[in-house]
Amino acid sequence: MKLYTYFRSSAAYRVRIALNLKGVSYESVAINLLKGEQRLAEYGAINPQHRLPALDIGGSILTQSPAIIEYLDEAYPDPPLLPVGAVNRAKVRAVASMIGCDIHPLNNSGTLAYLKNRLGHDQVTADAWYAHWVRAGFDAIEALIEPGPFAFGSRPTMADIYLVPQVFNARRFDISLADYPKIAGADVACSKLPAFERAAPARQPDAAES
Amino acid sequence: MKLYTYFRSSAAYRVRIALNLKGVSYESVAINLLKGEQRLAEYGAINPQHRLPALDIGGSILTQSPAIIEYLDEAYPDPPLLPVGAVNRAKVRAVASMIGCDIHPLNNSGTLAYLKNRLGHDQVTADAWYAHWVRAGFDAIEALIEPGPFAFGSRPTMADIYLVPQVFNARRFDISLADYPKIAGADVACSKLPAFERAAPARQPDAAES
Repeated sequence: MKLYTYFRSSAAYRVRIALNLKGVSYESVAINLLKGEQRLAEYGAINPQHRLPALDIGGSILTQSPAIIEYLDEAYPDPPLLPVGAVNRAKVRAVASMIGCDIHPLNNSGTLAYLKNRLGHDQVTADAWYAHWVRAGFDAIEALIEPGPFAFGSRPTMADIYLVPQVFNARRFDISLADYPKIAGADVACSKLPAFERAAPARQPDAAES
Repeated sequence: MKLYTYFRSSAAYRVRIALNLKGVSYESVAINLLKGEQRLAEYGAINPQHRLPALDIGGSILTQSPAIIEYLDEAYPDPPLLPVGAVNRAKVRAVASMIGCDIHPLNNSGTLAYLKNRLGHDQVTADAWYAHWVRAGFDAIEALIEPGPFAFGSRPTMADIYLVPQVFNARRFDISLADYPKIAGADVACSKLPAFERAAPARQPDAAES
């Protein structure tokens, strides 16, 4: 498999964690978002949406981290990324979705670029926007997760796969986790697992070049 | 079942379609987003995220439309909302995710309210922002779907469940579908099905009060 990735892309980070948890080996192809490599026609032939990540599984190229992570869980069932039971699964997916749909899209590089470059906002305004969406989402997630020590119990799930990259981003933007002890606890539990540790931005080959 | 909904909420609209496709009957509880009813403590006890939709299945309350729709597909397998085969399923989920994660979060009422009320932008700027994210997403979706006549073949899938409410919203904001014949075609095919027709905003009890 070939993963089109950027070390700081939160969505690519999720897929790296999922691939590692499943024990699926892959080759990384770095697409530098800061240099705009995702906008090149060459990458558009791989992913018409010009976004990261894309996973070439041989014969097909999959896009969109939520779809890729569900694919990996179906194609490689062990270890499962979702608990047993439709209701439990819905609760885990809801937390993933709060991050994937309600926090991250407001805070990714394209959105922040629109605020700054097209609407002329300064970094202070962009940072306040960023913090607003993180806090609104984390407030709800803190009320919903049940660490033990992971977001939902004794093994990592899809919720942790989304949470860890979002916590990484929140730290980059100096957002305190003091109000979110459950989120911070799940993040610590994950950081001890090699699957999460090897997926971290600083550990990616393209981090060194940056 | 009890669905907390607002007639114009795109995420609630998705869940109404899914419930109808599955033939699951439900009671509607209207939460008026314009009046800010989602922010009341009473609703916070139902959904700590203070967002729509929420589905009370008796014993548990599920939130986040992506998680609710996956739940419905697991708990009520017939008719399926996803095709057979992990790769095909990933392609359908990718289109759902392009709408759920890349278009809709930028364009929902909370985001537009931040742009207008907190950042002081006028309606023209908000409309341009809205159109930008719809077009970026629809350009990719138009390249990826294969109507026949639905987004992926001869029966509606999760992709159509996300597409129809997004097309409804695009029309409300006067965005032409002229460049998106495949998207427009799938929307027409869906509009002929009672499950989609009964889920439409204008058909909801709370539409009349508005």
